[in-house]
Amino acid sequence: MTYLDHAATTPMLPEAVAAMTEQLARVGNASSLHASGREARRTAEQSRERLAAALGARPSEVLFTGGGTESDNLAVKGMFWARRDADPRRTRVVVSPAEHHAVLDSVEWLVEHDGAEVTWLDVDPTGAVRPGALAEALGDGTDVAVASVMWANNEIGAVSDLAALAAVAHEVGVPLHTDAVQAVGQVPVDVAASGVDALTMTGHKLGGPMGAGVLVLRRDAECTPLLHGGGQERDVRSGTLDVAAIVGLAVATTASVASRVERAARVAALRDRLVAGVVERVPDVQLNGPPLDAVVAGGPGRLPGNAHLSFPGAEGDALLMLLDANGVECSTGSACSAGVARPSHVLLAAGADPDRARSSLRFSLGHTSTAADVDAVLDVIGPVVERARRAGLGRRSA
Amino acid sequence: MTYLDHAATTPMLPEAVAAMTEQLARVGNASSLHASGREARRTAEQSRERLAAALGARPSEVLFTGGGTESDNLAVKGMFWARRDADPRRTRVVVSPAEHHAVLDSVEWLVEHDGAEVTWLDVDPTGAVRPGALAEALGDGTDVAVASVMWANNEIGAVSDLAALAAVAHEVGVPLHTDAVQAVGQVPVDVAASGVDALTMTGHKLGGPMGAGVLVLRRDAECTPLLHGGGQERDVRSGTLDVAAIVGLAVATTASVASRVERAARVAALRDRLVAGVVERVPDVQLNGPPLDAVVAGGPGRLPGNAHLSFPGAEGDALLMLLDANGVECSTGSACSAGVARPSHVLLAAGADPDRARSSLRFSLGHTSTAADVDAVLDVIGPVVERARRAGLGRRSA
Repeated sequence: MTYLDHAATTPMLPEAVAAMTEQLARVGNASSLHASGREARRTAEQSRERLAAALGARPSEVLFTGGGTESDNLAVKGMFWARRDADPRRTRVVVSPAEHHAVLDSVEWLVEHDGAEVTWLDVDPTGAVRPGALAEALGDGTDVAVASVMWANNEIGAVSDLAALAAVAHEVGVPLHTDAVQAVGQVPVDVAASGVDALTMTGHKLGGPMGAGVLVLRRDAECTPLLHGGGQERDVRSGTLDVAAIVGLAVATTASVASRVERAARVAALRDRLVAGVVERVPDVQLNGPPLDAVVAGGPGRLPGNAHLSFPGAEGDALLMLLDANGVECSTGSACSAGVARPSHVLLAAGADPDRARSSLRFSLGHTSTAADVDAVLDVIGPVVERARRAGLGRRSA
Repeated sequence: MTYLDHAATTPMLPEAVAAMTEQLARVGNASSLHASGREARRTAEQSRERLAAALGARPSEVLFTGGGTESDNLAVKGMFWARRDADPRRTRVVVSPAEHHAVLDSVEWLVEHDGAEVTWLDVDPTGAVRPGALAEALGDGTDVAVASVMWANNEIGAVSDLAALAAVAHEVGVPLHTDAVQAVGQVPVDVAASGVDALTMTGHKLGGPMGAGVLVLRRDAECTPLLHGGGQERDVRSGTLDVAAIVGLAVATTASVASRVERAARVAALRDRLVAGVVERVPDVQLNGPPLDAVVAGGPGRLPGNAHLSFPGAEGDALLMLLDANGVECSTGSACSAGVARPSHVLLAAGADPDRARSSLRFSLGHTSTAADVDAVLDVIGPVVERARRAGLGRRSA
């Protein structure tokens, strides 16, 4: 089986599985005062320190959550609520239309439920957000509660310059959240250096477990809780700490960040060979997102493992199924909205027409990817595209 | 080490650890359309069916969440929002003051943030809520959005008659949520038979993993999402399904429910011997909560593993620390609010005076408890109480 869907979820690193399994055999609620509880607390706090070090944050800024979706919801809603409560003029949310649905749908709910207004950011043709677009959308900032721009796009791999965006936001006093779920371990991410006020990350995109995420939240960032209760995480997030998952998350993040440079180079080379090979076999294929060699602020401007391609005249779903039948696993877009056949909102936001959006496939390479995986795609892509195109013609003429 | 804090968290069942560990080694996002994704989806759905069978619910009513706190927040806030949006007269929440903080703090936030009004239910001296108290609080129900009464109290073990309470709520058209985190696997819990509209449960209180919970939500129950995004769980809850934790949760719940009758009898006998032995050694000890042999609607009226005791003249925290130093692990109340020295809100709600509340200890027995654990407490409890009382006297005279 050829797994080229690392952006949906990654195989866990063996060392993360081992650390997590060991912890599963231990008992102790990190809020309990006895020895077992204190030991669980110590383990969680060591993981917090490791995560902080890997992310360029302070330990007190690392809040454990149940994953990326929860972190995004907490940041967007919580910062909106806190900032609007502090000043009722702040009713605006400034956000890119290419965000993950966890951000988009949170914003849309704030519009329905809390009277928020949304200003959609211009997205450049590669899928990135430029500082100038943010500056224009923010205006003088007085009516803006929060802005949110993803670090790297999960579908077409565009990396934005978060340091430049944070500087723009701070110039007018607006806090900036970034969904860095796809960025951590793939491109250089340093919270302090970037200046962002809040950052979402999750375990299962970098070799860690599902169900474990982080919201990095600067000490001075105002954020109303989304989950109320025991107040375990700085009174911003409640719920018993899932110590085993936290340990797995910390081990995977540390390893992923430490091996990033070497792995990114290796994975990008494989990805480049994949794209070149597909172009040879399907000459009219179109690459979506930034050029393969794009650069942003000293790092790659495109996720090293991302190849997002449109095959004119073929339906993405048909391509996916035919590849799957040939043992190649990939995606038409975000797994989180898979199962629903609609053109990618990301490609549409980046200016693609719906036909191009509907004919696209995402190959995402990661830590387990090999040259054999690339060969497996190249062995079948030609006939697969041909067959999908014939099926599309058949449907249209029927 | 003598672990008598199963109400805070339980050791995982070996079969749950094994099932979870096996799944951690597999890759696949349950929302992906390829073979690995479909396999992950199949595994999650099988777990959903097993959980439904164990809980007396339909599979489509089982929504996976990140744990009890999230389930409580989703039920209380989500049902409030949905029902108030459908009819703006519904501004009231009816709730017991002995609930877990995940419910209490959700309600209090709705008061601050959404203009909710709260009606506190009368709690009887054992900590249970009587149907008459609920009927009185609901009135004609027209202005009530949602009611919430826990199935079994986490501190003093009082079990309420949820079938009778649901009947009362439904008579006036109000949906009833119950936090059954402590009840599942301990007392008979059948969602369909009880008639409750929403039920919270979690894995780590019955031998399953942390970070995995369920909200059972009847198909016709209206509930606004708390976490927006991919819409994975019936569009009521978003976030990548944590398949490994879900498998562990299903295995543990199935095993815990299947072994309930035998285990409850064994654990209750140990608990009764523990209480009798403490009474012998500390004659003025007071039992909080229902009598040990209380009965509610054909089942135990007190959690079989719960012994909640007050030691007049001793501080609960001092007792806890002295016992811990002797290798006995227990709690002064809920681990979720541990670390903060304040009298238990549950005991106060049940009518205890603050001194009694502050001098209390909770021993909670569970699936790993043995006669040796009881002996370990009885070996040291006399001198420990004596020492804590002397310390208390010393502090008061200082």
